[in-house]
Amino acid sequence: MRHIIALLGLSLALPGLAAAKPAGEPAGKPSSLSFSEVLKAAPKTDWRALEQENLLYLELANGRVVMELAPQFAPQHVANIRTLAREAYFDGLKIVRSQENYVVQWGDPDEKNPRPMKAGKRSLPQEFTTSARRELGFVALPDKDGYARQTGFAHGMPAAQDGKRAWLTHCYGMVGAGRDVASDSGSGAELYVVIGHAPRHLDKNVTLLGRVVQGMPLLSTLPRGTGALGFYEKPEQQVNILSIRIGSDLPEEKQVKLEAIKSESASFKRAVEALRNRGGDWYKVPAGYVEVCNIPQMVREQQ
Amino acid sequence: MRHIIALLGLSLALPGLAAAKPAGEPAGKPSSLSFSEVLKAAPKTDWRALEQENLLYLELANGRVVMELAPQFAPQHVANIRTLAREAYFDGLKIVRSQENYVVQWGDPDEKNPRPMKAGKRSLPQEFTTSARRELGFVALPDKDGYARQTGFAHGMPAAQDGKRAWLTHCYGMVGAGRDVASDSGSGAELYVVIGHAPRHLDKNVTLLGRVVQGMPLLSTLPRGTGALGFYEKPEQQVNILSIRIGSDLPEEKQVKLEAIKSESASFKRAVEALRNRGGDWYKVPAGYVEVCNIPQMVREQQ
Repeated sequence: MRHIIALLGLSLALPGLAAAKPAGEPAGKPSSLSFSEVLKAAPKTDWRALEQENLLYLELANGRVVMELAPQFAPQHVANIRTLAREAYFDGLKIVRSQENYVVQWGDPDEKNPRPMKAGKRSLPQEFTTSARRELGFVALPDKDGYARQTGFAHGMPAAQDGKRAWLTHCYGMVGAGRDVASDSGSGAELYVVIGHAPRHLDKNVTLLGRVVQGMPLLSTLPRGTGALGFYEKPEQQVNILSIRIGSDLPEEKQVKLEAIKSESASFKRAVEALRNRGGDWYKVPAGYVEVCNIPQMVREQQ
Repeated sequence: MRHIIALLGLSLALPGLAAAKPAGEPAGKPSSLSFSEVLKAAPKTDWRALEQENLLYLELANGRVVMELAPQFAPQHVANIRTLAREAYFDGLKIVRSQENYVVQWGDPDEKNPRPMKAGKRSLPQEFTTSARRELGFVALPDKDGYARQTGFAHGMPAAQDGKRAWLTHCYGMVGAGRDVASDSGSGAELYVVIGHAPRHLDKNVTLLGRVVQGMPLLSTLPRGTGALGFYEKPEQQVNILSIRIGSDLPEEKQVKLEAIKSESASFKRAVEALRNRGGDWYKVPAGYVEVCNIPQMVREQQ
């Protein structure tokens, strides 16, 4: 067991907060603190409380998945999801798909008799990208990326930009709106969550609108569907959605109070550097680089 | 459901086999064939049969996981695993760890009374990297990478190299040898499999020695351990290993006959291009890039 315990190399040594190096160059100095130590040491002012208005609670028979919505990137989709949640549209719908190393997806399983909507919408203009405006609070990573000119974080979400447009990136746990061939055929009434290696080729092709912040294993360990694209072949294999609610609509005792490291804080920068050049006795070669989707969430229950 | 079906965008259009572009540049022409269509059209000569001597069969109560070993990269570890399998060392050991978005790991759960070995070894010199020799058959990708000077494939395995050394990369489904702090403290007696986004910072820090080629969901859907690093906290949560065997030691009727696209074939190149610039009506913006860990396995049952 001692070998196993050591795999993550959590013990640490040596000082340094080096800048990232291009690929193939010698890596920077190992970080003096580990990722988790940086978070532990972060001052209260470097954390932000997650707003209940932006939290989506998915209730399953065996537990709850909490997602944070990103109205900065997909305001119309987020507004529609709030509307649909408020009219209880999702309650009793199904998780219909679990595809290995790809996505879990839910929606209305009944194509012939689709569930009616009240104020909610079945389709919306696409929000694949948004204006790369200053108010987005995009914090760039110095690390180069193959899929985008620049990657970084905004409001705790992994993102990318090219100077004109900005978009969320398809990292593990990201939530998006399933769509048909037409760009404007999604609305958030069907949602998917990434459960495998980041399918970054979907960036700028689908509307991403949030991220799972709690309960991810309830989705990632679902039995894989045996049909094409991981769809469950029998209705009884589908997973029932008890309800989907917006946090601010729940009684306070049912809300979970979460906080996240602010993307623009010194602690965030320090935590990323601790991932870029891991210190300690276990790591023999620091990577000198960190990819946007290899940066874990910095979210915890409020303290 | 129609929105959901469309998510992967499997329908196709337009010709073209464009070269990769740097990030931020306009993408290449969409590919005329999809990834799966390229594989379907691949001539028999572009496939290689997986050798039973290189296949490791992990039997669990609910099914079998098959791994292909990479003796080209980790000859000593692979030889030791063959020895351990032949002396039935693994039989009755446990999967002791399942960490969300990271790894599943197995080995001897009994630290105090470790299971004896016969000819097998508990530690070996590290094989984190190997000489970047011609015989490795390294096929480079034109796509730049953040973690390594160059990435590519060799013998069907995702890999990287810097002109002097070559190494396997920690993509989804890769198999490695757990180790303690000392570089030479692993031997393959404890193995881990990547079940999340590629932890590429482990590259060059651990001996990778193969890849899961069948049965991956049996590992990726295991309940996550609730202890630190995803360890199961109670012995009864651990998953029993019925046996681990080398394919060539099995009676033929128990062998699975698999074949893989040769990394050096035209079909391989074409399949990668189909991922780099996805065609069809669904994709609005081809990525113009593909990351080494975003290239799925090209393995199937022999036809």
